[in-house]
Amino acid sequence: MTAVERAPLTDHPLAQALFAPRSVALVGASSDPVKASSRPLGYLRRDEFPGSVYPVNRRGGMINGEPVYRALDELPEVPEHAFLMTPTAAVVDTVEQCGRAGVRVVTVLTGGFAESGVDGAARERALREVALAYGVRVLGPNSLGVVNPHARLALTANAAFSEPDVPRGGIMVASQSGSLLGALLSRGRDRGLGFARMVSTGGETDLSLGEVCESTVGDDEVTGYLLFLESLRHAGRLRQFARAAADRGKPVVAYKLGRSAVAAELAQSHTGALAGEDDVADAFLADCGIARVSTLDGLLEVLPLLRRVRPRERGAPARRVGVLTTTGGGAAMVVDQLGLRGVEVAAPSDDTRRRLAAAGVEAEPGAIVDLTLAGTRPEIMGTAVDVLGSAPEFDLLVTVVGSSARSQPELAVAPLVERAAPGVPLAAFVVPSAPQALSMLAAADVPAFRTPESCADVVAAALSRPAPRQTRTGRPDHAPAHLLDEANSYRRLADLDVPVAPYVVMPVRGPVPDGLRYPVAVKALSADLPHKSDAGGVVLGVSGPDEVAAAAARIRDAVALTGVELDRVLVQRMVPALGEVLVGYRVDPQVGPLVLVAAGGVLAELHRDRAVRMAPVDPATAREMLDEVTSLQALRGFRGAPEGDLDALVDLVVRLSALAGSEDVLEAELNPVLVARAGDGVTAVDAVVRVRTGGSKEGQ
Amino acid sequence: MTAVERAPLTDHPLAQALFAPRSVALVGASSDPVKASSRPLGYLRRDEFPGSVYPVNRRGGMINGEPVYRALDELPEVPEHAFLMTPTAAVVDTVEQCGRAGVRVVTVLTGGFAESGVDGAARERALREVALAYGVRVLGPNSLGVVNPHARLALTANAAFSEPDVPRGGIMVASQSGSLLGALLSRGRDRGLGFARMVSTGGETDLSLGEVCESTVGDDEVTGYLLFLESLRHAGRLRQFARAAADRGKPVVAYKLGRSAVAAELAQSHTGALAGEDDVADAFLADCGIARVSTLDGLLEVLPLLRRVRPRERGAPARRVGVLTTTGGGAAMVVDQLGLRGVEVAAPSDDTRRRLAAAGVEAEPGAIVDLTLAGTRPEIMGTAVDVLGSAPEFDLLVTVVGSSARSQPELAVAPLVERAAPGVPLAAFVVPSAPQALSMLAAADVPAFRTPESCADVVAAALSRPAPRQTRTGRPDHAPAHLLDEANSYRRLADLDVPVAPYVVMPVRGPVPDGLRYPVAVKALSADLPHKSDAGGVVLGVSGPDEVAAAAARIRDAVALTGVELDRVLVQRMVPALGEVLVGYRVDPQVGPLVLVAAGGVLAELHRDRAVRMAPVDPATAREMLDEVTSLQALRGFRGAPEGDLDALVDLVVRLSALAGSEDVLEAELNPVLVARAGDGVTAVDAVVRVRTGGSKEGQ
Repeated sequence: MTAVERAPLTDHPLAQALFAPRSVALVGASSDPVKASSRPLGYLRRDEFPGSVYPVNRRGGMINGEPVYRALDELPEVPEHAFLMTPTAAVVDTVEQCGRAGVRVVTVLTGGFAESGVDGAARERALREVALAYGVRVLGPNSLGVVNPHARLALTANAAFSEPDVPRGGIMVASQSGSLLGALLSRGRDRGLGFARMVSTGGETDLSLGEVCESTVGDDEVTGYLLFLESLRHAGRLRQFARAAADRGKPVVAYKLGRSAVAAELAQSHTGALAGEDDVADAFLADCGIARVSTLDGLLEVLPLLRRVRPRERGAPARRVGVLTTTGGGAAMVVDQLGLRGVEVAAPSDDTRRRLAAAGVEAEPGAIVDLTLAGTRPEIMGTAVDVLGSAPEFDLLVTVVGSSARSQPELAVAPLVERAAPGVPLAAFVVPSAPQALSMLAAADVPAFRTPESCADVVAAALSRPAPRQTRTGRPDHAPAHLLDEANSYRRLADLDVPVAPYVVMPVRGPVPDGLRYPVAVKALSADLPHKSDAGGVVLGVSGPDEVAAAAARIRDAVALTGVELDRVLVQRMVPALGEVLVGYRVDPQVGPLVLVAAGGVLAELHRDRAVRMAPVDPATAREMLDEVTSLQALRGFRGAPEGDLDALVDLVVRLSALAGSEDVLEAELNPVLVARAGDGVTAVDAVVRVRTGGSKEGQ
Repeated sequence: MTAVERAPLTDHPLAQALFAPRSVALVGASSDPVKASSRPLGYLRRDEFPGSVYPVNRRGGMINGEPVYRALDELPEVPEHAFLMTPTAAVVDTVEQCGRAGVRVVTVLTGGFAESGVDGAARERALREVALAYGVRVLGPNSLGVVNPHARLALTANAAFSEPDVPRGGIMVASQSGSLLGALLSRGRDRGLGFARMVSTGGETDLSLGEVCESTVGDDEVTGYLLFLESLRHAGRLRQFARAAADRGKPVVAYKLGRSAVAAELAQSHTGALAGEDDVADAFLADCGIARVSTLDGLLEVLPLLRRVRPRERGAPARRVGVLTTTGGGAAMVVDQLGLRGVEVAAPSDDTRRRLAAAGVEAEPGAIVDLTLAGTRPEIMGTAVDVLGSAPEFDLLVTVVGSSARSQPELAVAPLVERAAPGVPLAAFVVPSAPQALSMLAAADVPAFRTPESCADVVAAALSRPAPRQTRTGRPDHAPAHLLDEANSYRRLADLDVPVAPYVVMPVRGPVPDGLRYPVAVKALSADLPHKSDAGGVVLGVSGPDEVAAAAARIRDAVALTGVELDRVLVQRMVPALGEVLVGYRVDPQVGPLVLVAAGGVLAELHRDRAVRMAPVDPATAREMLDEVTSLQALRGFRGAPEGDLDALVDLVVRLSALAGSEDVLEAELNPVLVARAGDGVTAVDAVVRVRTGGSKEGQ
């Protein structure tokens, strides 16, 4: 990194005003060095920010010899970017002033908005309205600010920036949690990372994390993105950004809170959205082509590997890893952790073994290529990397470097550094503490990991990351909606060719139609009874016309107890099955249309045994979903049982997921879908569809 | 740490010869500095090891000005400890020479034994026999050696010790993988850890890791143990050591490979032992009171917390954590990771909140006590630690320290350092990179963590660690054993009062006994048919005498196809049930007697839904087991279903686990056990028992 230049202005007006403003107002700046509101001016002056800086405080006076303006309208020019540190009560008015004056971006440090009860929520609405009314863009509230070391801009009250010289580089960090900026800065600094932009997005009342990031994708200074996410707010903008970043080959990585059920429940109770559940977040991020890591170290170590491992093609077979080591114990730790994350470690092929032997490299049999002591000789390690790195059976070669990484760093990592041409799928886990070896690897852009856990985390994230999909994003709203009864649900799904067991609708008092094929199920037919089984509204295994009439009468009486006066029942042929599953579709209010496959029954529910994807899905993706549902192994010939028709189930999942193209359906659940023997198909024997009121083709 | 003194000789002769020998022979020492066999002499001279050191090599000559002895019998004294670096072929003879001469301990660096095929296995048998015959104790083969910095002894060929000045302290590291010693040394050095002993146990052909560690428990220099385990070889000695360490209050921690199913399968295929399965390793280590961590960082960070959190009482309720933070994002990461590991984060009680408020500490509502910026003031943080640290609702207080840990380390960690009296259950996760704060915390012996993952890993390990149990260790052997048929299995279990559904045995051709209560199950009765269902040997729901006769005939014909000529059938009353489980007992060849509860059916098998403990168990432990089996929630009133008699199931698990006191039973499986409604008990309706041949009370 050479001399700091004024960053070339981006051609994106938002990014320019956010990250490279020509003028900045610091509203509420304090002269008390103990206060956080004193920091931005100090940082900007220390770093010799080349733009204009105007401290503003109604009390006036001087800060470090600089005059303080008493009001925004006293400034000699309209600042492009105002940083607000005023008391909560003054924020909305000040943003309005900024808007009137033509300030382009206001970053609000102040808190006390939506997170602070009813009054705060009202303040936040007012803030949003003012922003909209005047066209001023607002970052925050509760934003710790923005940082652009290339422009010498540390427009932040974060104490972490009291340490000078933010290392410059290509990484943009965007965090919903302000305090994490400091942690990522210091941890990244220790690892030799360099930053292009850092932003704390706070409450995202106007500018969302996705929009802020998207404004920078055209900027050459930014080469990759690290996101710290608490939730999936403004998921549509996030997707749009991710796609734009992918178009320019800039990798995006997220660490998202909510891995544990406890955290997921917390998130869910806040939002009422399914997206609080972690597998939905996984599905959404994958659909956007965002790699998700699960370790903090992994977030800091992931980018070099993403530059070497291209996104995975959807439906392609799982990618495989070769492991080359000088230390059996060190390699075993990584292999164990890779196994936990479902990454397949493959053994070298016979051909590869022959090539190793021909090149004079001896390796014990087994999946791991262990060179033992010979591997500390650079020519042996180098030859092994050459042979294994070009072996077709591996999508990635993980080398495990032992004690010599510390004692002889030049020798130990030379074979990797020499072979680290861009695009070579190579990574290293360094077993001892070996800062010098890690620096050398980092300088050569070789992905290198400090712990077996972060290594496996990042390898799993990189190998499974798909390219973003060109999905239509559902735009859910809160328009009124209603449920359809079972028959209308079937009709609404008819144009998807969802296979349904034959049925007739009959008046609850009969007559029973002729020509039924028995046995049949008799079911209450009412949109007011979505859980008809629980209400005594279902009788199974009915074997003749008289029994049908009797069952209908029993059902009518039973559901009457719940206050529903029943007119009709649905009589449906019972079909044999090997097993049953739930196939569902739902427009999630945060992330949009989802399709879901879950094993049937209470046990599957207890085990949360399901797979989720953004809808629509193609057959390859539907097949992946079935692979993820553990219970469905029972339909794959497990323990000699006959195989179920999973091809037909794939087809059904694909068909139902096509609801993502509909305007009216918000939810559709086929439960159960009966799976017959291979070749005999699948059959839905119940359905509930929820549609926007007024928007259904089959409204009641 | 002040001047190095000659370590006081331990009163344990093995530990003395291993770790503080008065004289050492280096057999096979090389003068070529490139060779690993040149290292031990260099290390010992560099460190001014105060004992006698004798290089031995049949070629004689000089090494660095020292004369090399040509043979062991030329030395001026019998060395206490010989370190063997000879070629593989010479090892057995050399150990024999050592044994004849009266050498106490031989450490064998050389490889080429059991890991190297049939010839190697034969060599290893010969090595073991020589050791036994002459009473010389052997460490290895494939041992990288032993290190005792207090005695200036680096008797190792590990390149990691080319770095001088192993930091001295109280930690003993014992590793089945030699190369991990170097990794733990360098990583520990960076963290300010000090070591008392380090040992690579290699092939453990004579001295096991447990025996080596046990020899040091009386040594005051050793205050805690870190174990790196590849497998649970010599589990009995490991248990014996762990109990001795616990008696002296010295914590023992293990990082054990095999968390992933892939690794577990690898281990299992090696040994044929259930102990290859990770939950069995968990059960064994817990039974020994060994804390198990799952992250490499956690292994290095765990000991200070174990000194502050006493072992958990068996059957006591799960312990709970309070979280105090200055950074919401940092705390959320830890809480998320704790949730993944099943650790409960509790909210402060109303009383605690009142005490916080009375002391002038404001905290937002919620489970996490977030002081935000105020927490950077030491008096506020200190007061909060005082109040929360003494709150009865928490068993441990985790404080999360934000950016000030880096920018103002003295202020940020002072409140913790001041309150870190021994025994206070306090820990810290440091969010930024803050080496100075970490050093200060380490100096004050405050448990401190660098990543949310290692923090949660260690907290989970520390809170769940029980005291070791005084279990009789099963000593499995490979004596012949045989299966009992179902009726004899019931009889063998009769004195345990296992509840069994009433049955009679009848000749396969009748007559059918009078007085049966129908419906009944008719089952083939033969010790040669352990999987009688698969062979067509079971007919359920038989409703009268004629049908019993017909079923018996059908069964006879069916099993005849498998080559079994059937004489008798067992006719058993069918009992109603809400659900079924498997309850099993097994003497594992590695770890000894185990009891197991698994949900019944194929789905449970697919989900590996089971709980394992070392047998016998008490009711509290049996209850914990049932809590761990996810499917059993279906018998706890899930979704309005009736509750099963889990009290009776607890009782059955306890009874069956008492087989650990038997001499003859190697395996007993009740599958299924039917669970009736609460109060109506449980009933075994099948049993298979395997006993030592000649040792069964009910042998056929």
